[in-house]
Amino acid sequence: MDEWGNRLDEHEQEVWRTFHRLRNQLALALGQSLQQDSGISESDFEVLAALAGAPDHAMRARTLRAELQWEKSRLAHQMRRMEQRGLVVREECLEDGRAPTVRLTDAGLASIRSAAPTHAARLRELFFDALTPAQVDALHEAGRAVLARLRQTCPAEAP
Amino acid sequence: MDEWGNRLDEHEQEVWRTFHRLRNQLALALGQSLQQDSGISESDFEVLAALAGAPDHAMRARTLRAELQWEKSRLAHQMRRMEQRGLVVREECLEDGRAPTVRLTDAGLASIRSAAPTHAARLRELFFDALTPAQVDALHEAGRAVLARLRQTCPAEAP
Repeated sequence: MDEWGNRLDEHEQEVWRTFHRLRNQLALALGQSLQQDSGISESDFEVLAALAGAPDHAMRARTLRAELQWEKSRLAHQMRRMEQRGLVVREECLEDGRAPTVRLTDAGLASIRSAAPTHAARLRELFFDALTPAQVDALHEAGRAVLARLRQTCPAEAP
Repeated sequence: MDEWGNRLDEHEQEVWRTFHRLRNQLALALGQSLQQDSGISESDFEVLAALAGAPDHAMRARTLRAELQWEKSRLAHQMRRMEQRGLVVREECLEDGRAPTVRLTDAGLASIRSAAPTHAARLRELFFDALTPAQVDALHEAGRAVLARLRQTCPAEAP
């Protein structure tokens, strides 16, 4: 985008490219490890980890979506595929008028229990061990600053 | 993943959650802006920008894939959809045995020319303006350190 992205100077373009590559390459590497070691995708892992951390291993669909910050269509597609594979069940709760809920199955719980330690080890190897403590803190601080800006500018829908 | 991700300490888990949220929320916000202002997705934008920066606005499919760091199936799916919408053409070059090439169409070029300035302005607003120059540099340095580690650990396929 060099030719038209002229509202960013050259250093900013370089920083953005680095961040963008970091995001893509880290996701690719972590996704390949998850697939290879545990037979699940990074999206599967995100959903399983969120549900595993919730009370009763269940969340309302819109709370899950707010937590993951996914587009509605992406969550719906992902839920269909994970339900087909027996990792989650969707409960509509029609009788008491409550919102649709997503619940981890025993197979889903077994899957995240098996995947999490390997994923954490890979994250340590590829991310934390590559950084000094000062760099980890700087990255944390910068990340929080951008997230605060995003909250101001694009307020999330209430769950 | 708190219960099982015990190879990361609490601070590291917090840093990773921040980075992960940053990645997802920034992608969501930039994606929504692109869709609203220019009618294209962030994936469309990435492909269009890569091709627009290439000689003759064309790249071999595998070079494009190496540049974007996407899974093969994701690129194939994205190329099909962009070709249907007239943004790129795929050329097989069967007669001289060269590898498949992806080329930007005039419509694709018009699309990226219209989208790029708005996207850059949004990036400035959400990302660069939220950070001090020192934070931008720290983020750049940390990003480069992790990318260097990724290159060591997961060498890319040769294009």
